[in-house]
Amino acid sequence: MTQAFSYLRINPDRMLDAFNQVASIGATADSGVDRPTFSEAHLAARKWFRDHIEQSGFEFHTDGAGNHSAVLPCDDPSAPTLILGSHLDSVPNGGRFDGALGVMAALEALKTIQENRIKLRVHLEAMDFTDEEGTLVGLLGSAALAGHLRPDDLERPRGGRGKLLEGMQRVRLNESGMLNAARRKEALAGYLELHIEQGKRLERANLDIGIVNAIVGIWSYRLTFIGKADHAGSTTMEDRRDASLGSSAFTLAARETVMRDFPNCVVNVGRMEFAPGAFNIVPAQVDVSLEFRSPDEEQFDRLDQVLLDLAEREAGRFGLSLKTEYLGRHSPSLMDETVRNTFAEACNDLGLSHTPLPSGAGHDAQSLADVCPVGMIFVPSVDGASHSPREFTEWIDCVNGANVLLQTALRLGSG
Amino acid sequence: MTQAFSYLRINPDRMLDAFNQVASIGATADSGVDRPTFSEAHLAARKWFRDHIEQSGFEFHTDGAGNHSAVLPCDDPSAPTLILGSHLDSVPNGGRFDGALGVMAALEALKTIQENRIKLRVHLEAMDFTDEEGTLVGLLGSAALAGHLRPDDLERPRGGRGKLLEGMQRVRLNESGMLNAARRKEALAGYLELHIEQGKRLERANLDIGIVNAIVGIWSYRLTFIGKADHAGSTTMEDRRDASLGSSAFTLAARETVMRDFPNCVVNVGRMEFAPGAFNIVPAQVDVSLEFRSPDEEQFDRLDQVLLDLAEREAGRFGLSLKTEYLGRHSPSLMDETVRNTFAEACNDLGLSHTPLPSGAGHDAQSLADVCPVGMIFVPSVDGASHSPREFTEWIDCVNGANVLLQTALRLGSG
Repeated sequence: MTQAFSYLRINPDRMLDAFNQVASIGATADSGVDRPTFSEAHLAARKWFRDHIEQSGFEFHTDGAGNHSAVLPCDDPSAPTLILGSHLDSVPNGGRFDGALGVMAALEALKTIQENRIKLRVHLEAMDFTDEEGTLVGLLGSAALAGHLRPDDLERPRGGRGKLLEGMQRVRLNESGMLNAARRKEALAGYLELHIEQGKRLERANLDIGIVNAIVGIWSYRLTFIGKADHAGSTTMEDRRDASLGSSAFTLAARETVMRDFPNCVVNVGRMEFAPGAFNIVPAQVDVSLEFRSPDEEQFDRLDQVLLDLAEREAGRFGLSLKTEYLGRHSPSLMDETVRNTFAEACNDLGLSHTPLPSGAGHDAQSLADVCPVGMIFVPSVDGASHSPREFTEWIDCVNGANVLLQTALRLGSG
Repeated sequence: MTQAFSYLRINPDRMLDAFNQVASIGATADSGVDRPTFSEAHLAARKWFRDHIEQSGFEFHTDGAGNHSAVLPCDDPSAPTLILGSHLDSVPNGGRFDGALGVMAALEALKTIQENRIKLRVHLEAMDFTDEEGTLVGLLGSAALAGHLRPDDLERPRGGRGKLLEGMQRVRLNESGMLNAARRKEALAGYLELHIEQGKRLERANLDIGIVNAIVGIWSYRLTFIGKADHAGSTTMEDRRDASLGSSAFTLAARETVMRDFPNCVVNVGRMEFAPGAFNIVPAQVDVSLEFRSPDEEQFDRLDQVLLDLAEREAGRFGLSLKTEYLGRHSPSLMDETVRNTFAEACNDLGLSHTPLPSGAGHDAQSLADVCPVGMIFVPSVDGASHSPREFTEWIDCVNGANVLLQTALRLGSG
């Protein structure tokens, strides 16, 4: 462990300037950003990042999955790469901090190391991963880079196959490029990510830094409740096979079951789509976007079974049939112990309070967790707001997080 | 009452040919039609009707609401007009019979009267009313013609203001034209409509003709349940204000209440729209398309109050707020007694069995019920299918209905 660089700090004003520039791209009237993957605003943010990388004197790198990065090579061409990063896409009508902060902190860490001409034993990359939020696939870029992306993920993406192909065309990506974007395991020294907490634990406990110990697993389905289209005036209530009854009853029952029997888990029905969808027609079909999460593998399997059984039961109760489309699963991921300890040392040296905590949200770190040592830190988010224009983190907390990221990269890269 | 024309019958093959031509416009793979108001297919059907009117030697007439008709004038220019008609628009993915049968039967009745050079005391019109189904406003053309259309109906239409304006532009209609399309009461001798039953009563009782005694009233709202967008992984179940819970609980409770306390009424939640609508975001807002119907005015008011109270209660139960947008109301309408008796006489003379029955569906006839004598007849619909590609009526039943329409027009027009 080299303590020689422990005096180094990132440049808060330079990072803020870059952060504000990104936040202005796809900005919404309510201080959020709207940058779903491969939307016009997202393309503009990707272009800004590329230009900024080149203007800052780094090599620009991209791959078959559309991941973008600034490269700061070390003297040994055969050395592995330590990646720092996050993502520039947002959920629809999201916030300024989720993802963008991590990319800006990664780039600022590289700038600080570059301008101080520090020689490390690893190459460094500051990376923007493609489609973390799942507008199209979810953790797309990181899964591709880690070698986890399967043809099936592209065949039946959660955002719809048509939208995926259209988006890929817009940035000139193709499926074979995506499926061949994996890096060799040996070429990866590790992955570090800074993110806002997306919860209230740090704020409530008045702590500076959360060191993530595990990321919850995420499972998603499209459930389709199928009834019969009928005239909404002349068909008696008894004669109807109304798909909305199955989807509504499932939504309520799923919540109740999770709250009662799965206290560590969460479930979300983020969307229902009605067909034909008119005032005066009994709904023939309702598509339900279902997602649930668990930090624990065994509980995860049990919850999966329970929710699918519930959907079957509620469909049957209202004379409906049920179609279940499996969309994808990410297992719970453990963060690397050495990385976690190094984060803690860096916090201690910087005089920052810290605590271990799990991540209820999915992150690119989980894609990489089984191919290299990965670690994540959280900074406090006011009122725990996330995936919302209300996202806000005090700038001092962002700077603290970036300094922990910098110090941890220096320690791991020179070790 | 002149029985001189009682030998007259419509031409079944000629009517079938016209019916099939219309059914091919906007035809769907499952034998239905998709002709929402002012869609490409609807415009094509309107153009077909206009061309066909002119080719058949009738005057073509249109008005500020886009209603199209074939005119067969009588010798007295100051005589009033007896309108026969229905509509050529369909619900999304609807059937071939709803509306189109009534327009084709009306036109066929005029052709039969024209070719037999029969002199009546009224002008006749075979009319296609604009937007009966409510893609945009609902009963738009007939309300305009009856003088019931109000600026507010065009300001806050159920299909959305933008869609209405866009559609009107497509057919070169404007708001002032719509609001000034009313005919003088004295110029209207009456309105007759043939329609498929949209229910199973005639089929179950094995009867030829249903003579409508009343049309149920329809009331519609857009209810908006408002919660808070949050990250669907990191926000605890307890901390959420999930708009989908209010909309789901309301949908189930509304059905239960109507079935228990309002046996003559029906309620429909035809659509929910989720915002932001992503897998990984707790729904901040759900828009509910609500419609309910009653044949009885007093019960109607009570049901309105009960449903709005239910929505408030369910919103409150899940920490949501509720926005209620009133979209429109049609009161229950009684059909004219003389017209009903004339329908019955015509059925008797034609050897057709008949029964009085209420209409659970709304129809253009209700717009006209308070400005002139109106009447409606139903023909059996197989399995009661309606607003669905499964709509089917035996051709002999369609022909029977058209003959009742013809004979009733002759009797009323020569009386």
